[in-house]
This record gives sequence, C-alpha cells and structure tokens, in this order.
Amino acid sequence: MAGIEIERLIALMSRLPGLGQRSARRAALALVERRETLLEPLARALADVAGNVRTCRICGNVDSTDPCAICADPARDDSLLCVVEDVASLWAMERSGCFFGRYHVLGGLLSALDGIGPDELGIGDLLGRARNAGIREIILATPATVEGQTTAHAIAEGLAGSGIATSLLAQGLPVGGEIDYLDDGTIGAAMRARRPL
Amino acid sequence: MAGIEIERLIALMSRLPGLGQRSARRAALALVERRETLLEPLARALADVAGNVRTCRICGNVDSTDPCAICADPARDDSLLCVVEDVASLWAMERSGCFFGRYHVLGGLLSALDGIGPDELGIGDLLGRARNAGIREIILATPATVEGQTTAHAIAEGLAGSGIATSLLAQGLPVGGEIDYLDDGTIGAAMRARRPL
Repeated sequence: MAGIEIERLIALMSRLPGLGQRSARRAALALVERRETLLEPLARALADVAGNVRTCRICGNVDSTDPCAICADPARDDSLLCVVEDVASLWAMERSGCFFGRYHVLGGLLSALDGIGPDELGIGDLLGRARNAGIREIILATPATVEGQTTAHAIAEGLAGSGIATSLLAQGLPVGGEIDYLDDGTIGAAMRARRPL
Repeated sequence: MAGIEIERLIALMSRLPGLGQRSARRAALALVERRETLLEPLARALADVAGNVRTCRICGNVDSTDPCAICADPARDDSLLCVVEDVASLWAMERSGCFFGRYHVLGGLLSALDGIGPDELGIGDLLGRARNAGIREIILATPATVEGQTTAHAIAEGLAGSGIATSLLAQGLPVGGEIDYLDDGTIGAAMRARRPL
C-alpha cells in the first residue's frame, strides 16, 4: 500500500533490536512525516557512521578513532583491565562512571552449545596482552549467567600462576531493589555474600 | 565514550516513536556491528525515501507516486470514501483488507484545546470533494475517542442534506477479547449495540 521505498525502509527498520513489524512501521511513518528534521539528518548520520566508525584493534570498542578514545587516553590506569562480553557492556560500564582502567571486549561468551571455545573468543590473545602490558588486576565483568561465569572462570584459570589478580563483579540486590520482586537466585546470592554491618 | 558520529546517530534514533535512549543505543550498536547487511542498506533506504516519497495530493497518503497507488487504482470503488485521522490509520485499514474504496486523510482531529478547528483539518475541502466526486457513502473511521467521535459528527453534520450517507465503524468487543480484561466503556458499548442471535 505504501511505495516500494517505504516498504524496504520498514523491512530494514524491523531488523533493529527492539523494533517489531508494527513499531518499524510507526517509525518509518514518523521519518516520512518529519523529512527535514529527522529523515535527512538520520540518513546523513548513518552515512557518517558507515564512513568513520571502526573497531579498536586494542580493546574491540567501536569509535571514530583507532585506537579508541579510551585506549588513547593517557590518564587511565594501565594496571587495571576490565573484560566485558560486548561493546554494549563496555558502554554501560563507562556510563556508570565507576571504572578508570582499560577494557577488553571478548565479543561473546564460551558456549559449548554454539561451538564457541577459548580460541573463538581470543582468550589466548587476552592472556598474552595481560602478561605483556603490566596489568595488575583483571576484573571479569561478564554477565551473571552460566555462560558468563564459565567464561570468567576459564580466563581466571588461564591466568593462574601469572601473578595477575582476577576479580568478579559482586552479586546481590540491585540498588533500589525490592526483596519481594527479586528472583530466588539473586536473594540467595545476596544472602551468601552478606557482610557485617 | 563512543565517537561523536555514533552519539549523533543515537540522539536521532531516540527521537523515533517506540525507541527510548536505551533502545536507541542498542539499535545504533546493532547497526555498527552489522555495517554491510544493515547500516549501509538502511542509509540507502532513507536516502531513497527522502528522494522519492511524497504526499498524495488527492487523499493525503504517502507513496512514491502522486496520485498514490490507491487513488490511481481504477479497480477501486469510487462511490465509497473512508475518512481516517492519519496515514497510519490508512495503512491499518489496508492491512485489514476489508475496504476497497478511496481514502481521505484528515491529518488530525478536531481539538478545541489544541486550537484545531474545521478549517485546520480542511473539512470544507473534504465536503467539496465528496459532493463533486459522486460519492455515495462516507465511512468515518476516526478513532473511538472523544476527539475522534467529535470529528466524525462534525463531518456528518456538514454533509446533512447532501444525499451522501455517512457511517461510523462499529464499537464492541475486539475479536478474541476476553470480557474480564475489557474496560467498562467497551463493555457498555457492546451491550448497547447488541444484536439478536
């Protein structure tokens, strides 16, 4: 019912995470209706990103420079390395403003089911980087899932005897979390990791 | 933390309906990670839409031709005109596959609060079109809200004495609707409009 161009736009939009068929249709319509203030700037922004953004060869972040702004920043602590699953996790850590070291993006997690082993994740390269770069502590900020924790333990094992400390993010109640809305696993983890007041 | 290009892309994406700050960030990241299969095709699709899509001067639909494919289709019934609030409503009617006449997009609804009167909506033009084009029935497919129904009644009043029939979409239970999940207004409307079995 709409032109072929709009149908193609809707089909592409619906492949974005968080947009289904219906919301892709609404978004495409909003773009058509706001051509000068939204559609044309978005087309230009996408072309800019396609032309300028690349993957950092040191940490795996995406940025318009390579090495990325974080790897190039001389003020950050070279002795701390935070290992994350993906770029989204890296951005979330940065938004929290609680970490001032360097990063390593794994690009996935160990998964026997999906055939992703230590080689596919480049865990060997990570261990090499950690040993050569004078790193004192590796913070394993992988998700609190079975695969995330398996990956963290595999990396920790590989570093055994290297003199590099490894740590995991704490598990427990999220800030503002109501007890009766939490799952049993989180309550159990918080109970086991309880601390004296 | 990401490059200026990515931040601008996120800011633009977050202005789309249905995407907040967080989902815009996820979508932008998916675009960066799938540059050749998603980002570049989307940039081209947006440029195509910007270059080719226009508003139909007869009905107000958006399409790559003017008049749009619906207005240009000789197989559709010229004697039926469906009046809708916006292009999204027109597309929804077409998806339902239950109407084969012509359309008129109002581009809004009467609203004393927002200062939108009959002139702003071009209701005079609609009445002129209806009288000149040999239309037999106008289906007022405005939403089942106070403003939608006010608009429908204003159009019906304007057509009084013209010999053109007007009708409203039926109100009642949605298909598959459970009674105990419905609001009181819908149950009341369905009760008042009940029909003998």
